[in-house]
Amino acid sequence: MTKYVYFFGSGSSEGSADMKNLLGGKGANLAEMTNLGIPVPAGFTITTESCVYYYKNGQKLPEGLEDQVEENLKKLEKAMGMKFNDRNNPLLVSVRSGARVSMPGMMDTVLNLGINDEIVAGFIEKTGNPRFGWDSYRRFIQMYSNVVMDMDSELLEHILEEKKKEKGVKADNDLTADDLKSLIPVFKAKVKEYTGKDFPTDPMEQLWGAIKAVFNSWENDRAIRYRKLNNIPSDWGTAVNVQAMVYGNMGEDCATGVAFTRDPSTGEKIFYGEFLQNAQGEDVVAGIRTPHPLRKDRKTDENLISLEELMPEVYQQLVDVYKRLENHYKDMQDIEFTIQNNVLYMLQTRNGKRTAAAALKIAVDMVNEGAINKTTAVKRVAPSQLDQLLHPTFDVKDKATHKVLAKGLPASPGAAVGKVVFNAHDAEEWAELGEKVILVRVETSPEDIGGMNVAQGILTARGGMTSHAAVVARGMGKCCVAGCGDVSINYKSKTFTVGDVLIKEGDIISLDGSTGEVFNGEVKRITPDLGGDFEIIMKWADELRTLGVRTNADTPNDAAVARKFGAEGIGLCRTEHMFFEGDRIKAMREMILSSDVAGREKALAKLLPMQKADFKGIFEAMNGLPVTIRLLDPPLHEFLPHEKKAIEELATDMGVSVEKLESKIESLKELNPMLGHRGCRLAITYPEIARMQARAIIEAACEIKKEKQVKVLPEIMIPLIGDVKELKMLKEEILAVAKKVISECGVDLDYTIGTMIEIPRAALLADEIAAEAEFFSFGTNDLTQMTFGFSRDDAGVFLPDYVEKRILEDDPFQTLDKNGVGKLVEMGVKLGRQTNPKLKVGICGEHGGDPRSVDFCHKTGLNYVSCSPYRVPIARLAAAHAAIDSKK
Amino acid sequence: MTKYVYFFGSGSSEGSADMKNLLGGKGANLAEMTNLGIPVPAGFTITTESCVYYYKNGQKLPEGLEDQVEENLKKLEKAMGMKFNDRNNPLLVSVRSGARVSMPGMMDTVLNLGINDEIVAGFIEKTGNPRFGWDSYRRFIQMYSNVVMDMDSELLEHILEEKKKEKGVKADNDLTADDLKSLIPVFKAKVKEYTGKDFPTDPMEQLWGAIKAVFNSWENDRAIRYRKLNNIPSDWGTAVNVQAMVYGNMGEDCATGVAFTRDPSTGEKIFYGEFLQNAQGEDVVAGIRTPHPLRKDRKTDENLISLEELMPEVYQQLVDVYKRLENHYKDMQDIEFTIQNNVLYMLQTRNGKRTAAAALKIAVDMVNEGAINKTTAVKRVAPSQLDQLLHPTFDVKDKATHKVLAKGLPASPGAAVGKVVFNAHDAEEWAELGEKVILVRVETSPEDIGGMNVAQGILTARGGMTSHAAVVARGMGKCCVAGCGDVSINYKSKTFTVGDVLIKEGDIISLDGSTGEVFNGEVKRITPDLGGDFEIIMKWADELRTLGVRTNADTPNDAAVARKFGAEGIGLCRTEHMFFEGDRIKAMREMILSSDVAGREKALAKLLPMQKADFKGIFEAMNGLPVTIRLLDPPLHEFLPHEKKAIEELATDMGVSVEKLESKIESLKELNPMLGHRGCRLAITYPEIARMQARAIIEAACEIKKEKQVKVLPEIMIPLIGDVKELKMLKEEILAVAKKVISECGVDLDYTIGTMIEIPRAALLADEIAAEAEFFSFGTNDLTQMTFGFSRDDAGVFLPDYVEKRILEDDPFQTLDKNGVGKLVEMGVKLGRQTNPKLKVGICGEHGGDPRSVDFCHKTGLNYVSCSPYRVPIARLAAAHAAIDSKK
Repeated sequence: MTKYVYFFGSGSSEGSADMKNLLGGKGANLAEMTNLGIPVPAGFTITTESCVYYYKNGQKLPEGLEDQVEENLKKLEKAMGMKFNDRNNPLLVSVRSGARVSMPGMMDTVLNLGINDEIVAGFIEKTGNPRFGWDSYRRFIQMYSNVVMDMDSELLEHILEEKKKEKGVKADNDLTADDLKSLIPVFKAKVKEYTGKDFPTDPMEQLWGAIKAVFNSWENDRAIRYRKLNNIPSDWGTAVNVQAMVYGNMGEDCATGVAFTRDPSTGEKIFYGEFLQNAQGEDVVAGIRTPHPLRKDRKTDENLISLEELMPEVYQQLVDVYKRLENHYKDMQDIEFTIQNNVLYMLQTRNGKRTAAAALKIAVDMVNEGAINKTTAVKRVAPSQLDQLLHPTFDVKDKATHKVLAKGLPASPGAAVGKVVFNAHDAEEWAELGEKVILVRVETSPEDIGGMNVAQGILTARGGMTSHAAVVARGMGKCCVAGCGDVSINYKSKTFTVGDVLIKEGDIISLDGSTGEVFNGEVKRITPDLGGDFEIIMKWADELRTLGVRTNADTPNDAAVARKFGAEGIGLCRTEHMFFEGDRIKAMREMILSSDVAGREKALAKLLPMQKADFKGIFEAMNGLPVTIRLLDPPLHEFLPHEKKAIEELATDMGVSVEKLESKIESLKELNPMLGHRGCRLAITYPEIARMQARAIIEAACEIKKEKQVKVLPEIMIPLIGDVKELKMLKEEILAVAKKVISECGVDLDYTIGTMIEIPRAALLADEIAAEAEFFSFGTNDLTQMTFGFSRDDAGVFLPDYVEKRILEDDPFQTLDKNGVGKLVEMGVKLGRQTNPKLKVGICGEHGGDPRSVDFCHKTGLNYVSCSPYRVPIARLAAAHAAIDSKK
Repeated sequence: MTKYVYFFGSGSSEGSADMKNLLGGKGANLAEMTNLGIPVPAGFTITTESCVYYYKNGQKLPEGLEDQVEENLKKLEKAMGMKFNDRNNPLLVSVRSGARVSMPGMMDTVLNLGINDEIVAGFIEKTGNPRFGWDSYRRFIQMYSNVVMDMDSELLEHILEEKKKEKGVKADNDLTADDLKSLIPVFKAKVKEYTGKDFPTDPMEQLWGAIKAVFNSWENDRAIRYRKLNNIPSDWGTAVNVQAMVYGNMGEDCATGVAFTRDPSTGEKIFYGEFLQNAQGEDVVAGIRTPHPLRKDRKTDENLISLEELMPEVYQQLVDVYKRLENHYKDMQDIEFTIQNNVLYMLQTRNGKRTAAAALKIAVDMVNEGAINKTTAVKRVAPSQLDQLLHPTFDVKDKATHKVLAKGLPASPGAAVGKVVFNAHDAEEWAELGEKVILVRVETSPEDIGGMNVAQGILTARGGMTSHAAVVARGMGKCCVAGCGDVSINYKSKTFTVGDVLIKEGDIISLDGSTGEVFNGEVKRITPDLGGDFEIIMKWADELRTLGVRTNADTPNDAAVARKFGAEGIGLCRTEHMFFEGDRIKAMREMILSSDVAGREKALAKLLPMQKADFKGIFEAMNGLPVTIRLLDPPLHEFLPHEKKAIEELATDMGVSVEKLESKIESLKELNPMLGHRGCRLAITYPEIARMQARAIIEAACEIKKEKQVKVLPEIMIPLIGDVKELKMLKEEILAVAKKVISECGVDLDYTIGTMIEIPRAALLADEIAAEAEFFSFGTNDLTQMTFGFSRDDAGVFLPDYVEKRILEDDPFQTLDKNGVGKLVEMGVKLGRQTNPKLKVGICGEHGGDPRSVDFCHKTGLNYVSCSPYRVPIARLAAAHAAIDSKK
């Protein structure tokens, strides 16, 4: 017979802290505390397995569970010296959920269970407190009818409110025992009226109702959403904890509180918590009354009285307990306690949630205290949490005073404040005059790069987390709120509206890129300090990780920022971004509009010195580190204007007719540009482009080496390869140019030529391709698009449905799809190394900065990941986690 | 030492007919004929291996070749009793190419080699014919200077012309020996002037020059293009045949001719050929003089004299030879012969090219004659050849009288004549009035389906072989010329122009869908008769093949046509085509414009009976055969109009504002519709569409079964699956509807549910998907698009470059890419059957009708291929070929 129920109480438990998967976090820790001899009200835990069984079998409880619950109820009665369903010495219980990981407030709880008209009398006799008795009873009916019987909680709350009005009182506490007693039949009648059922009076029936309700709450909307947000698998299930009630609200010698063993905001080693006298636990959380500090030295107001002063003995006991707990768990604890008639009961302990700064400090401090080792310390900081530290954030208090104007997708973190402008040109002009601007667009295109670059933040009305705006903004480490559908933009009048609110060009708005919120006016900001703890943890992480971390950077400035964040090279330098600035776009357009090789070569010759200068800057910034440069990738039409006026201007500029220009633009239009004439296909058609770029790279490398003794390690990367013959053909072009330039310069230069693997066919035929490649870099953005057949620009319409309906666990553009895309990556690595054992393999898609994807990259044996500069520390830490996890 | 040279002559050879790969077709057959004791001028063959070596080693001849050639030259001298480079008894030779398969006229030939100023004198002495001697010499200089020394042939031809003018004669034949003699120094001087080199006088130097020139001609433009067109690998190389010269032009007792052992047009068992008296072989081909028939009974004009009459003995010898050859090779032979002084020499025999009709007749006849078995007969007919038979064709003679107006891609075979219209609406109106129309569009879209359906043919200015127009036309078996860039369309004036020619609405044009030609006016047509031979070969093919052949058909009519062609079921019935006609598009649009489920369901309810009626018709047509119905696939925007006027009409029609309609159309726009909201993704968002379609299918099946005792085997196919959860979710919807409908109807019905595998991820995770699928159908069109990252609508810009530069051997949309896409198909089949051994697997992309792709499908173990109705016989025959080939 499977054991479905685990008992704890009387100083020993059937469970322990390492049984979290089976007993849930709460249940395992209650068992552990009991084992440690810490005072915990006795109880028992119904396993998560029971919940899993329940869902796998059409919401049926497993056989044997009933007997085991009854048996444990007996043990519980014995441990507490009270009896369930006994008028004379009644035992009341709480029924609480508890999954493997904490899902605060997401699932249901029932308190004071086991009470009815008869038992309440005995309860009153025993406590000698009629008001308390009736209050517990009415609270139970309210909670139970809501949680178990699916009644809207407002229905009974309304009756309570009416009663208070009738009695002319304000607080629940002001109602007398008789008032409360008089509510019971009214409540019951309302339940009958609303549900068509009598409120259950049998305590056992109540108990099973509550147990099932907790199981059911695993699949309520809130819980589902929470799991999705926190990547908690839906097949874990929840445990149910049935525990003897203790009361913090039985009189003045009672209290209830919560505490952290260290400060969860700063990490400071200070016992930190609050309590309420004569109150139930829920009251502290609900914030109806202002709680008091536990410690005397934490009083902010003379009128407050600390627990230390109020109940010095119990306080000392609590201090002993918290120290034992932290010492035992070797981590900062978040504890809940209740004091009933001057007796301390612990109701919960768990590892406390903390800010990124606190996580760093606690981890470092605990290593210094000798409590944990460096490996544990590194694992204590979640990589994704670091994001908070790397961008300025809004002052929480000031933010609270601003109403949210609109909400979009949190596309790129940061807190931006600036004046609204509606096009890239204005953004650049205003910025030149020293203005801080927010660029507001329906969506952005590569033409907007300049404006995005000078803006504080970007707000778009359309596009998803991987839209152009989002991707480029993250690359720049720039705040971006994307796909903000509430915003209705009128370019002509240079205004946008949200409902009735009209925002004009020049008005100040604030964007929170971590939440997607948009505020009218300026919200104050704070720049977190990357203190010594950050450096220490990152140093330890670097010692532990084996996976390299590079950055995606297109400018010397990006490269320098990334290097400061610990990047060990550039994994992706996109050369096309270099073609949008100033005169360059002109030369680029001239190239595109040329009808023959000679014309194209003439235009390319103008681009050569500019591109070379960029490369020199980047090589210098990355002195001694490898720099992977990708040849031109986007379709040519991205470099041409699409609006009538811009076309006319360009035509005049170029000295061609508007018709000719329009017809060229038309001829470059594609139905599916994603699958069109781009990447290496451009170089196959126009090898002169690849030749110019190869020359720019090699000349830059030779010159900077000669001029400044910079150590240059260029890696030339050919994008969008689908067949080895493409690579071979272009490699030959590049080798010929490189050979020529190197001999012209008279410099020794090592460089490599490799390819992106971003087309499924390339991964499938990686063995052939590796014969010609010195390195692979998985372009998992495009690889994901083609493997799924999802256009990331269009998937916004249906992807949310997919995640909502749980067809996909994650947005595959955010977290690498291990099953499908990952299979291709694994094949690519395996086949590639089969042919070329020295093949260097990296990844340069957006996934390179996503911790779970980094874990996959480590497991798959990649040499490095490459991500945007601001995600480099996150990737470093994630790589360390991956190394630690895979050693287990 | 590798043997590079094989001798033939004096009744025995070192080679034989089965050494075609090494000796080329011509060399192997010359050896074989020699072995058979048939009179062949002696000679030797330099192997194709030598040519391969030549190209692999920077155009260097293999070591040892020189010695072997000299040695064989000695043998040749001995066999012929003459000497190379000998004034007194000179041996002249021909040097000819000869690859594995015949590449007529593509590579170079040099005749009369071994002559110079001195030898010509001896040659004249020996033949006693000075005119013949000087003519041979001048011909040699002309040929050699052109082929070996790269001189434009016009340069010497011009001198010849001048001489004729000077002498006041018209034909070369009218020049005297002295005239010709006088040309020699002039020719030589011109060669020197033009090439800077003396014309070589040393016969050995001449010989090596010619051998290398033949090798070089393997890589000339014509040869490369021919190989590409005929899928001949470039690494085969050519052999070189050096053979003693014999002359058909030495006098009136000389002749030269070509013949087929049966009629190559009809296949009739009749010796069929022509000859010219006193002429060189080239003269027959060049058509300067009208050749005479070989047989007396074939004289069309009393002035002609047949070989039978002219040289009865030699003729009889020729008849003996041809019979022996056909009997030996057991196939119709294409032979070349020369008669020198009443002596017959055979210069070539090879399997003769023939029309499809002839191929069928010869194969069947030869089985009846006991010459070959059925398997050989089936292999004798090329599947792709059948295409000729299945569509009406233009009368060749009448076609020759029309000038080609423009040329586009031969997108769908057929010969169409009709009046030009410029939109689908007009096409339908005109057709209703009994007019035959040709629909001319820049490109077509699903809105044009109705017009395409009633048109005789379709002409588009844009789009490739797999553009919408091409695919739909092939599906309809309708003639289509696509991507005809010469055509400039003006919708407003309802005209198109090609250069100066203006074609107005209502003008008659003719389209040849097999060549891509467009003619002004009407070209006469003939409908080939699918005679008994066709039926017999197809029956034999069916006995031999193991792969099933189904059809892609969307209407009862298509289904009936395909069944007549031997389809064993429908592999793909596209339901969306059903939504474009008449009222349906209205209901469909109403559905799309509805903002809630109720509205959509209301509109869908209107579509239900119409779709059901279609299905009933199709089920009835396919009585007893399986019908695979694909649920709605294209993105919804394809059902909405995009032109201003149509939008305004629809808005009025629907009772919505133009703005609302426009904004809906705008919201459905996608950047990459190929990777957008379509296929099963629509059904995930709007399950009510899948429910309606499931109901229509199952109700139709139940009703037709009940009403007409039709045996119905519906297979419901869900498109664009990327994850098993999509399939599972939609399967549940369909199962629920089906269960309900079946019980409502009270009929027993077996049906299956399966999926298309057209997204790389689906192939990669086929094991998971097969757990929920009863069948897979590989949608290799989309699979190719996504595996390559090629949009077939846009790839037209760069794919030609790819084939031209030999990065890809074939257009992957025409012939399945075995390496890449094929690897996914293999994975899909293997993984799928791993989970579900009973999984039925087919293919329904355009590749299903391509013979080489059918071969791949057979090898990969598919159960069936599905193709457009008109390609069903081709697929049946290709499947038989595949079965035969894989037994070898």
